[in-house]
Amino acid sequence: MVPQLDSYFKEVDGLQDKFIERLREAVAIPSISSEDERRPDVIKMGEWLASQIRALGGTVELRQLGKQPGREHLELPPCLLGRYGDDPKKRNVLIYGHYDVQPAQLSDGWATDPFALSIDDKGRMYGRGSTDDKGPVLGWLNAIEAHQKAGIELPVNLIMCFEGMEENGSEGLDDTIRAEAKRFFKDTDVVCISDNYWLGTEKPCLTYGVRGCNYYSVEVSGPGQDLHSGVYGGVSHEPMTDLIRIMNSFVDPDGTILVKGISDLVAPLTDDEAALYPPIAFTMQDLYQSLGSEVAIHEKKEDALMHKMRYPSISLHGIEGAFYTPGAKTVIPAKVIGKFSIRTVPNMEIHEVTKIIQKHVEEEWAKLKSKNTMKFNIVHSGKWWVEDPKHWNYTAAAKAVERVFGVKPDMTREGGSIPVTLTFQEELGKNVLLLPMGSSTDAAHSINEKLDKRNYIEGTKLLGAYLHYLAEEPTK
Amino acid sequence: MVPQLDSYFKEVDGLQDKFIERLREAVAIPSISSEDERRPDVIKMGEWLASQIRALGGTVELRQLGKQPGREHLELPPCLLGRYGDDPKKRNVLIYGHYDVQPAQLSDGWATDPFALSIDDKGRMYGRGSTDDKGPVLGWLNAIEAHQKAGIELPVNLIMCFEGMEENGSEGLDDTIRAEAKRFFKDTDVVCISDNYWLGTEKPCLTYGVRGCNYYSVEVSGPGQDLHSGVYGGVSHEPMTDLIRIMNSFVDPDGTILVKGISDLVAPLTDDEAALYPPIAFTMQDLYQSLGSEVAIHEKKEDALMHKMRYPSISLHGIEGAFYTPGAKTVIPAKVIGKFSIRTVPNMEIHEVTKIIQKHVEEEWAKLKSKNTMKFNIVHSGKWWVEDPKHWNYTAAAKAVERVFGVKPDMTREGGSIPVTLTFQEELGKNVLLLPMGSSTDAAHSINEKLDKRNYIEGTKLLGAYLHYLAEEPTK
Ligand SMILES: [Zn+2]
Ligand SMILES: [Zn+2]
Ligand SMILES: [Zn+2]
Ligand SMILES: [Zn+2]
Repeated sequence: MVPQLDSYFKEVDGLQDKFIERLREAVAIPSISSEDERRPDVIKMGEWLASQIRALGGTVELRQLGKQPGREHLELPPCLLGRYGDDPKKRNVLIYGHYDVQPAQLSDGWATDPFALSIDDKGRMYGRGSTDDKGPVLGWLNAIEAHQKAGIELPVNLIMCFEGMEENGSEGLDDTIRAEAKRFFKDTDVVCISDNYWLGTEKPCLTYGVRGCNYYSVEVSGPGQDLHSGVYGGVSHEPMTDLIRIMNSFVDPDGTILVKGISDLVAPLTDDEAALYPPIAFTMQDLYQSLGSEVAIHEKKEDALMHKMRYPSISLHGIEGAFYTPGAKTVIPAKVIGKFSIRTVPNMEIHEVTKIIQKHVEEEWAKLKSKNTMKFNIVHSGKWWVEDPKHWNYTAAAKAVERVFGVKPDMTREGGSIPVTLTFQEELGKNVLLLPMGSSTDAAHSINEKLDKRNYIEGTKLLGAYLHYLAEEPTK
Repeated sequence: MVPQLDSYFKEVDGLQDKFIERLREAVAIPSISSEDERRPDVIKMGEWLASQIRALGGTVELRQLGKQPGREHLELPPCLLGRYGDDPKKRNVLIYGHYDVQPAQLSDGWATDPFALSIDDKGRMYGRGSTDDKGPVLGWLNAIEAHQKAGIELPVNLIMCFEGMEENGSEGLDDTIRAEAKRFFKDTDVVCISDNYWLGTEKPCLTYGVRGCNYYSVEVSGPGQDLHSGVYGGVSHEPMTDLIRIMNSFVDPDGTILVKGISDLVAPLTDDEAALYPPIAFTMQDLYQSLGSEVAIHEKKEDALMHKMRYPSISLHGIEGAFYTPGAKTVIPAKVIGKFSIRTVPNMEIHEVTKIIQKHVEEEWAKLKSKNTMKFNIVHSGKWWVEDPKHWNYTAAAKAVERVFGVKPDMTREGGSIPVTLTFQEELGKNVLLLPMGSSTDAAHSINEKLDKRNYIEGTKLLGAYLHYLAEEPTK
């Protein structure tokens, strides 16, 4: 049965000015979670969001998470645990989002005040948090309001989890999810997260996987202090020479990983999966535009997409302890720390990856016959996440996309990790869907972050429609 | 004829408290040439020095050098051009030194106020500039004063060149030397510079060469802006991957230079030269102590000394544009600049070296087949300098050392460049001698810089004795 959605859609259109005002109010609260002095604004933002939900008839607990570990002068912003509807006959959808934002100030190069929503003649709504993640979170509230105005009952119960520390390590979130998995979240049937982006600007996508990230450092030290290269060059083993050799051993300029054993861990490409890439609305021109130049390794879009989504990669990020400012300094740094990371994909077991990389580093080190000292460190590691895109959570979302936008969504995986997906998958054992609202040009985390009016309003329709299809989708 | 020096030496001993007070006054003026707000103190220091010389009967011009190029709000400190004696029958010795100092503040970790001379029970006189280069400069003045007190005429005429920008690139000095080569400096017979250090703490040395330094950078760019390694890792050519490969191509962990053609330029070791290294008072333990650890490449002292003094070396200093702070950042830097330099020695022609290195970089770059862009830059280059250590300037100095210290001096070359040696050699065409006062433990440029009382007082005797031997040394 096709859900009756026309009157809901009509109310969304009719309420769009109100929805934009809601976003304007939210953007005006500079809820930057990584700046100490903005912490009260993050907390204020959580309270504002709670009051909005309560005004719509939802129930909310602002779960206090205590002091921030290691920075005990700071109170963590609360995790908003909310409910809208508790009909035992309905399915339960856990929706996740975050109400904190990245840092921003006009002097970074913003064209307009980042905390005053500014709409241009193309309907681009500029403001910090517009697309990441205040717009999508408010999309759920807008959907509730439009349903109420249209006199249509929400076909599912909503369980809400909105955090205020996402841009600062999601401190406290995993503990909350673990603690509430069998309590507040226990009725969850599926999870939906709206906190990522379309691949381009025209076609929506559903995201069913993200790569993981293992981040390492290699520390090389030797001399007791920095040395003058004139006095000691050629006399002393130099930590930089050794470190550069180690860092040179991981990856070729064309991206080929040189660490033996890594590629054996990667899941083979099936025909089923291979068929997912060609229809994706993405061109090499799109890639060049987002790279800001034509330095793509691959010539074909399918190759580029697969290397972004389903193959591992190693990047060299930098060196701590060496000379890094403009100009010239004739220093032999005494201790240098190289930073690099590997993006992981199915079926790479992350501890196995670490074992292989550590062994590789130790073997390369032994070859150097250096009198310096080397230390290998794991900085952090986060597993990849992937879902079955044929699950009813996805098929329902795909139908909603087709209903609102008239096209089948791209089925995508992302390059960068979104750790909460994995936590929900593992702790709740339920299917997790990433259902983005914004587009690839939204500049989340950059200056001039924006959300297009079309994405906000049609996105609100999509979130509502998804709930209806979800309510009716056969679970097979 | 052996110069009669006993009464001079006696006066130096008798005046030592006064000489220490002179050093205390000089150290108290924080003449830091690289800090804008200290510039007036540098100028004040130049004036103080001029008044000291005038009080001894010398004539002084404080040559104004105008505004500092590129930093026109700053007046350059004057170059002090002085004379003591103008007897046409006497030889003329040009003495060079500098009256500016490196930055210093107590909070850097100094045990005592860096601008208040502090003498411990071992006679170590701590203070910024004590050994570099106020102590040696005042040594010349002390020598004049002790001669006057002893009623002995100075056997040579002194031509003085004391600058105030040595620690900040010697701005204006080369122009002054060039301009005055045939004027103020025209009668110069030999040049003596006291602005370096003994190899150890017991035995004086004469320094007859320094390595040169060619400093280069390799800039690799590609993406239009920094990229997220999760989203673009494996998709984009990464400037860091390319740069690390280039930087890896220059030198082995054991210091072997891998750039073809460089070692062919190095002057072969003659038996004569080889014989200079074994007598040098220097042990591997001395080296370990100055390195702060046992990471020396060579096992034998002669090898270490030759690699410090007479072989080229390549050092990798660091990377600009990459991630350099503690912690983890998953960035693909869009533009990175690798800094490295080569220390040059006879007979390396420095433009030839640059040609070889640039060709090497371009060949290595071509191998990468990268779509990124590479730019090779010469940051600065300064030639090596070497003198004939059998010149009468050196034999006279060697006799003076033997007279004062009872040992033959070490004949050394230095690793780090002292560009003014070369300027004097080239512009005046006269023999240049480096005659150090301080010892290897003086910590010039570091915290707790000091000059030992013994080095200051015996060094003052040495400078005076040198003038006497110089006056009598056959020129062959
Ligand atoms: Zn987000
Ligand atoms: Zn974000
Ligand atoms: Zn210095
Ligand atoms: Zn100096």
